[in-house]
Amino acid sequence: MTKDRLNVGAIGLGRMGRVYAQGLAQRVPNARLVAVADLKPDVARQFAADFGVPRWYESHAELLEDPAVDAVAVISSTNTHRDVVVDAVGKGKAVFCEKPIAISLAQAEEMLRIVESRGAFLQMGFQRRFDSAYLGAKNKVEEGVIGTPVLLTSTSRDPFRPPLEFCDPKVSGGLIADMGIHDFDVARMFMGDVKSVHAIGCTLAYPEMKTVGDIDNAIIDMVFESGALGAVHLSRNAVFGYDIRAEVWGTKGSLQIGYHRQTPILVMTKEGITHDVVPYFMERFEAAYLAQIQDFVDNVLAGRPPSVTGADAVAAMRISLAATRSQRENRPVEVAEVEAGEARTA
Amino acid sequence: MTKDRLNVGAIGLGRMGRVYAQGLAQRVPNARLVAVADLKPDVARQFAADFGVPRWYESHAELLEDPAVDAVAVISSTNTHRDVVVDAVGKGKAVFCEKPIAISLAQAEEMLRIVESRGAFLQMGFQRRFDSAYLGAKNKVEEGVIGTPVLLTSTSRDPFRPPLEFCDPKVSGGLIADMGIHDFDVARMFMGDVKSVHAIGCTLAYPEMKTVGDIDNAIIDMVFESGALGAVHLSRNAVFGYDIRAEVWGTKGSLQIGYHRQTPILVMTKEGITHDVVPYFMERFEAAYLAQIQDFVDNVLAGRPPSVTGADAVAAMRISLAATRSQRENRPVEVAEVEAGEARTA
Amino acid sequence: MTKDRLNVGAIGLGRMGRVYAQGLAQRVPNARLVAVADLKPDVARQFAADFGVPRWYESHAELLEDPAVDAVAVISSTNTHRDVVVDAVGKGKAVFCEKPIAISLAQAEEMLRIVESRGAFLQMGFQRRFDSAYLGAKNKVEEGVIGTPVLLTSTSRDPFRPPLEFCDPKVSGGLIADMGIHDFDVARMFMGDVKSVHAIGCTLAYPEMKTVGDIDNAIIDMVFESGALGAVHLSRNAVFGYDIRAEVWGTKGSLQIGYHRQTPILVMTKEGITHDVVPYFMERFEAAYLAQIQDFVDNVLAGRPPSVTGADAVAAMRISLAATRSQRENRPVEVAEVEAGEARTA
Amino acid sequence: MTKDRLNVGAIGLGRMGRVYAQGLAQRVPNARLVAVADLKPDVARQFAADFGVPRWYESHAELLEDPAVDAVAVISSTNTHRDVVVDAVGKGKAVFCEKPIAISLAQAEEMLRIVESRGAFLQMGFQRRFDSAYLGAKNKVEEGVIGTPVLLTSTSRDPFRPPLEFCDPKVSGGLIADMGIHDFDVARMFMGDVKSVHAIGCTLAYPEMKTVGDIDNAIIDMVFESGALGAVHLSRNAVFGYDIRAEVWGTKGSLQIGYHRQTPILVMTKEGITHDVVPYFMERFEAAYLAQIQDFVDNVLAGRPPSVTGADAVAAMRISLAATRSQRENRPVEVAEVEAGEARTA
Repeated sequence: MTKDRLNVGAIGLGRMGRVYAQGLAQRVPNARLVAVADLKPDVARQFAADFGVPRWYESHAELLEDPAVDAVAVISSTNTHRDVVVDAVGKGKAVFCEKPIAISLAQAEEMLRIVESRGAFLQMGFQRRFDSAYLGAKNKVEEGVIGTPVLLTSTSRDPFRPPLEFCDPKVSGGLIADMGIHDFDVARMFMGDVKSVHAIGCTLAYPEMKTVGDIDNAIIDMVFESGALGAVHLSRNAVFGYDIRAEVWGTKGSLQIGYHRQTPILVMTKEGITHDVVPYFMERFEAAYLAQIQDFVDNVLAGRPPSVTGADAVAAMRISLAATRSQRENRPVEVAEVEAGEARTA
Repeated sequence: MTKDRLNVGAIGLGRMGRVYAQGLAQRVPNARLVAVADLKPDVARQFAADFGVPRWYESHAELLEDPAVDAVAVISSTNTHRDVVVDAVGKGKAVFCEKPIAISLAQAEEMLRIVESRGAFLQMGFQRRFDSAYLGAKNKVEEGVIGTPVLLTSTSRDPFRPPLEFCDPKVSGGLIADMGIHDFDVARMFMGDVKSVHAIGCTLAYPEMKTVGDIDNAIIDMVFESGALGAVHLSRNAVFGYDIRAEVWGTKGSLQIGYHRQTPILVMTKEGITHDVVPYFMERFEAAYLAQIQDFVDNVLAGRPPSVTGADAVAAMRISLAATRSQRENRPVEVAEVEAGEARTA
Repeated sequence: MTKDRLNVGAIGLGRMGRVYAQGLAQRVPNARLVAVADLKPDVARQFAADFGVPRWYESHAELLEDPAVDAVAVISSTNTHRDVVVDAVGKGKAVFCEKPIAISLAQAEEMLRIVESRGAFLQMGFQRRFDSAYLGAKNKVEEGVIGTPVLLTSTSRDPFRPPLEFCDPKVSGGLIADMGIHDFDVARMFMGDVKSVHAIGCTLAYPEMKTVGDIDNAIIDMVFESGALGAVHLSRNAVFGYDIRAEVWGTKGSLQIGYHRQTPILVMTKEGITHDVVPYFMERFEAAYLAQIQDFVDNVLAGRPPSVTGADAVAAMRISLAATRSQRENRPVEVAEVEAGEARTA
Repeated sequence: MTKDRLNVGAIGLGRMGRVYAQGLAQRVPNARLVAVADLKPDVARQFAADFGVPRWYESHAELLEDPAVDAVAVISSTNTHRDVVVDAVGKGKAVFCEKPIAISLAQAEEMLRIVESRGAFLQMGFQRRFDSAYLGAKNKVEEGVIGTPVLLTSTSRDPFRPPLEFCDPKVSGGLIADMGIHDFDVARMFMGDVKSVHAIGCTLAYPEMKTVGDIDNAIIDMVFESGALGAVHLSRNAVFGYDIRAEVWGTKGSLQIGYHRQTPILVMTKEGITHDVVPYFMERFEAAYLAQIQDFVDNVLAGRPPSVTGADAVAAMRISLAATRSQRENRPVEVAEVEAGEARTA
């Protein structure tokens, strides 16, 4: 690309889709949001009107025919990712795709093969990699501040459970795949590939989740290829707020990432000293989502490779599948055991 | 106004001017930045090109003739505020004016009289009132969380001194007027009007500031009309970062506002546990500047009165003048002693 | 006991022995330290002179013959615990015994049988149970502040490794048994008995530890009998200080235990904001050691049962043995698999 | 003194007297508490019995006749300090005297003259000087960590007001003298002598204090002889707990002293994140009181001069008197204006 600005089309205008599309419309200076597509035509039309987007479509196929579109942001539902990404690559578009990459490992690996065979540009969305805290910690590790990393912990805790229909592992992949995918990506960001995992889970905070076969808390331990250790904690019952943390321990020091306070006010009364908390993911990661789509635009314009590849997405998915299997079979599982042939939710 | 969107012109494209103008161009959904003006034509032209602003001008007078302009944001240098605001009011524009309101109390009071006689809309910029922490604390006070407020502290400390030419009290008004104006406004926000002040100052961190007649640290104590007490601390040598805090003490509890950490990373090594800090005002108040100009647009469109009035700006200026006089004469000074006849820098 | 004061003899005057003996001599008002014994007669004689202890002995057997001695504190080396405790029980003394209870599970279970058959009083030392933070958290859980606990984490990280000769698992039991015993006791304190464990370990911070067969970091996950989950993190390379933490997660909230700052000073310079840390275990737990021996004295005088029993010590030891085996065999291990027949270090 | 241990008599067994006497009896290894005196014979007799003190007396005069007594700790009521200290000096005893030194500046200066003319040893009690945080901060200042100090703040806030009869300035000296004396001593510890002060006060939290003529909040600003600035904040309505803080600002950095959390537990529920606070002075300064009396014993035994002199106590008293006068007369007051002739409560 030798352009100054990238013409982007946004596919999918659900909650996350609107976040990315608004960022592209208003806050990414070197992007132009030239088209949007959503299966609900009213949604697409209204969004285009509200944000001054020149054209709107009902299907991704129509949008991909638009010659003004250089690149697409795929934020449609996961079960459409394979088709949309493959079609976009076929039309020569640069692609940003929100995680998870696909509904099954088989689909994901097929997508990877097509992207690679065509030399296409596919950048995956894992917003923690663009958060100032995770990014700053990564820089400190690379500067040698903590010496050689030997252990990582990564924690994701939601303030409540999703509606039961979304907890069904046949839909979500289950707690470990659904929530843990970010932590497994963080694990690889700091420590490299994972060799084996062991997971335990329980359903004690929301017993009704047993009716759909999901768990509400999980602990996953990991051995990295380097021999280093890791642990991921996942929960649906951080009832106080959104609890996202990580620690990286090295031979010369350690780093803690995360902070619970949202507003810098302390309330001091006879009940003690109290502060509020980050309520949920958008308050925590809004800036990271913007930085991520900005990074995609910058990479495409500069002819640089993607910051987060499809292979990264597949690697995180394989860890989550191994961990899910470990929890079900109550044994350590080698990540290499996980074959593309098995369905994501198997 | 019965419009959906407000057409705004921005006057002055210096550092702060660009912040507001960019906000109006890209991040205030119900505003359209339709014109910009700067005394440097290249600056105005380039800004218009970069941000898709339809028209640019070299003088505020030209911009005020533009019939598309409903409202103006005045972020030109303080010594121009009187003329620009009076001209804008004369043309029937709604006005947002960045603090300080004018170069002297006499000018400020003249502006107030003209605004009032015309029934014009003038909203002043004091961004701390729109910061989530100050605003949240104000809400908690109003909810009765701390009972009746009896004491306030407000602290502003800069990480370095300005260039010497800007320290000259004939230019800046001196440390107490230049930095303290925000704290005096915060004081009124929480505690109401100030009856008397006493101030002390020193020039120990940067002795070279004596050559221009300014001080580098000051402590101002205040007695409010209600009988409550207050203290303001000002400094140019918070060398670690930008130190903005306040405390409100009541009969049932107290509130602390402020937090030093910028990035949620703790570095833990043999040297101890370390975190970074908020470096300077834009990192601390960027969201507040945006919220403030958004509030201006909302108020004008809804036909609501200004959130921060010219009278508020004059009241804060009178406190700062009384405190400056107190520091020079080493005696408590009643705010009522300060007359409009005296120059701001007297 | 109907006495006002308990006459105690202290057996073992090593580092920890002196802590308990000084506490008994000077800071436990309802105790009298009437005798001390140490295999090094000079040590015993000098301690008695320094702290006004009436009698000193070279062997525990002599001290146990002293008719003035009502109770003994056993803080001699672990390999002597079985003989000293059994002899003391035989002489009808009430016994406080520092952890670990014995060098092997077989010995420990033998001790338990003897204590039980004689109806003797044996209280074990696990000082975290008497720390204001762990104790306060336990009280909050019992008050229902966090609802039903569903997950626990417990972390112990040392600032350096022991001398290599003490790392040898044949001496120490290995990292998991040596350090983790406190965490396993904390786990039972909050969550009840453990059903199964899985452990992973590495030797990356101090590769020289491989020469003696020990690891320097370990992660142990636990499934409690209740179905709840737990995780223990152990490390020898928290180079910044002594890192002792726990979290208890419940259906209505959670508790965090632990704090790193030792002195309430923040240093704010251009390098950031820094504070010091708790350097090591005595700075962290001095008050808990005193509270624990005070509790022993109070229980004996009041005729109350021991706060921490031999059965508690055996239960923690069984968890540590199961975890050690899990780490070596890379599989989940049921705690019930661990038989008394196997040696502690097997 | 060439002794190994100092034989000390304690005069006054009120609340603070018992703290010091118990410390001397049990926790200062190189002291022997050989006698106690209290005007209530039952109190003296019982204390002696409880703590194994060989002799007890009803009057300080009797205790001073005891030839076994090398040194005395004077913790009787302030109005007796002059007579007790002068008598003890007359008998050649080394003296520790709890603050405040006397009921009036005239008395205090008379005491100083007598101590000096006899070359007697008088060490005053200001426990903050022995607190790990204040002491550690002082060390950091001396190491040059913050460069040259240019500004100090010192804050003392109580969680409640004293009974009204103790608020009466004729008894207590008033808020500024009663509470501020510690802050004025801290000010001198870090910044040297004070040149002038200005104080404001109010009675808004406890209006009933007006009936005895006292205030419940005060702000005192100070100009040091060096030209540096200071501020002291005093309050009776820190209803959440005991709020003791200080900041020292220098040319290269700053130090914050103080921390509110008592127990290292965070409670995280839907109401936010909450922690407890230091409730009152004994929880905050217990270790400092012990360190202070230990220091007295060490100094006497080693033949070193007192760490805190009578002149220090008089200097702090003069600042408190100047500040009290400033608050009453609403004008800055030079400390040199305060003459010994005026009564403390004038």
